[in-house]
Amino acid sequence: MNNEQDLVNFLKKLKSYHKSIITGVGDDCSVIRFDSKKKYVFTTDTSLLGPHFTNDYSPEEIGYKSLATNISDIASMGCTPLYAMYALTLPKMSDSWIKNFFKGSKHLLDKYKISVIGGDTTKGPLSITIQLVGIQKRKILTREGAKIGDDIYVTGTLGGARAALISKKGSKAYKYFRSYLVRPQPRVEIGLELSNFASSCIDISDGLAKDLKNISVASKKGFEIDINLIPTNSKFNEYVHDVNKEECILGGGEDYELCFTANKKYFNKINNISNKTKIKITKIGEITSSKFKYTKSGKSYRVTTKGYDHFQSK
Amino acid sequence: MNNEQDLVNFLKKLKSYHKSIITGVGDDCSVIRFDSKKKYVFTTDTSLLGPHFTNDYSPEEIGYKSLATNISDIASMGCTPLYAMYALTLPKMSDSWIKNFFKGSKHLLDKYKISVIGGDTTKGPLSITIQLVGIQKRKILTREGAKIGDDIYVTGTLGGARAALISKKGSKAYKYFRSYLVRPQPRVEIGLELSNFASSCIDISDGLAKDLKNISVASKKGFEIDINLIPTNSKFNEYVHDVNKEECILGGGEDYELCFTANKKYFNKINNISNKTKIKITKIGEITSSKFKYTKSGKSYRVTTKGYDHFQSK
Repeated sequence: MNNEQDLVNFLKKLKSYHKSIITGVGDDCSVIRFDSKKKYVFTTDTSLLGPHFTNDYSPEEIGYKSLATNISDIASMGCTPLYAMYALTLPKMSDSWIKNFFKGSKHLLDKYKISVIGGDTTKGPLSITIQLVGIQKRKILTREGAKIGDDIYVTGTLGGARAALISKKGSKAYKYFRSYLVRPQPRVEIGLELSNFASSCIDISDGLAKDLKNISVASKKGFEIDINLIPTNSKFNEYVHDVNKEECILGGGEDYELCFTANKKYFNKINNISNKTKIKITKIGEITSSKFKYTKSGKSYRVTTKGYDHFQSK
Repeated sequence: MNNEQDLVNFLKKLKSYHKSIITGVGDDCSVIRFDSKKKYVFTTDTSLLGPHFTNDYSPEEIGYKSLATNISDIASMGCTPLYAMYALTLPKMSDSWIKNFFKGSKHLLDKYKISVIGGDTTKGPLSITIQLVGIQKRKILTREGAKIGDDIYVTGTLGGARAALISKKGSKAYKYFRSYLVRPQPRVEIGLELSNFASSCIDISDGLAKDLKNISVASKKGFEIDINLIPTNSKFNEYVHDVNKEECILGGGEDYELCFTANKKYFNKINNISNKTKIKITKIGEITSSKFKYTKSGKSYRVTTKGYDHFQSK
């Protein structure tokens, strides 16, 4: 095992004992039917000092981001979150730290009406593992339904989180992009709207190149996207050097925007969702039969970034 | 906030948005109804190098114990486990470590027919957070149903895990007691049997004194137990110094036996369960109206141990 995908493949081979499991290991969430009408989705994510947050994050920002990244996994399945469990490893039991941490989470707990149903606390190096349970409203979106000829879209703008990460702390660029990194916006409303008709969906947590590849592999298709169509913040070109641009928009994770595919006939519908939610949704390419192809203003373009993997150096 | 209970009390005050939550923060598991006939239970526990395992544990032993302790929470609710999610923080991605870790878990996954439905991996100091979902078979047991006059029982023997912890590594005593610490046996079968009639139940993870107090506080009752009735391993008195005995049987956590209460009329039934499962079940005292009273061979006894808390020194 060299990377996270190897471990996913290993876990997929473990015996499954329940027919109630609609989707097991390998998507943003697992999908369970219980003995119920609606299906439920389950996800868990660990946030650590280092890969997920740095010393300049306030407890409130950690409380916000660690929950937001989990909600993003529910959003990408076209579902809505219900319950959260917090497993917290804390260096010490600090009243103010914990209150501020949950103040950060509370913004999202209230917005999405999520109930905290349990948790665990241990003493050790700061680590936050949150589990979320969500429920389907309409269809559940997975990575594997993309069809040849479907359009490929992304929400919001990409590259902002990575632009902050590579900027010097305290610099103008860092200050400008920091909110992309620290306060990602889970796209629950858009996910729910898309769940009626999109053919596949994923949240961009490991970089567009890797996450779009995940859609393609799961759907057994290829794709062609034009780099120049990928939407970025209006100041992206001003602040980010040419040499870093590809890494930011394709390799940089942590944008927590959605990448999804849909039949061409839904183009207007998607524009309407964008207008309704006031969030940019941009067509960046098309699903093809097999190859992963990037172009830049029409010309073929070779991508070098691999996307984020906790166990591989970039 | 000074200890884990303070944090539990803080979390209990967070707003709950769902009537589907039968039991929220504060018991071994939370209980959820969904839109289903059966209720489901949810639990999460983090295992860390230091408080939960030491460097002499093999990956297989860590994989076993980290799952066993979670299953124990499901057992204490009188339920049976269904699904597991693993959030693993690993210093490196080692093929053999991961395979051996899951080999340890597999023993329990197979025994209880638990499906692994998802997970997350990050790079960092070794930490394992497992979430389990279980399902009710009969009644769900909680901490809060103990009635005045109910008998108090414990399964198995107590003190073995702590006896290993306080013994010198490699010593005869350590070798003798190590399996109590490293391979706790979740009491799922007994929990299921008890769920028909027991009035309350908890698993002994933080020491009998603390866990029995949890039953009493949740049930708004008192208790009286006789220290000399608490069952220990036949070599306990040989290996454990008098000065450490109280700490082992009352303060030492990690036994993962069940402590439960039941109406006196079930005494024979409980003996039958013990015979059927071949696991000792011992009456150690009785639920009273308010005070927490310990006796030793009839005489009043003052207990000094407080039980395990990750954030308080012993």
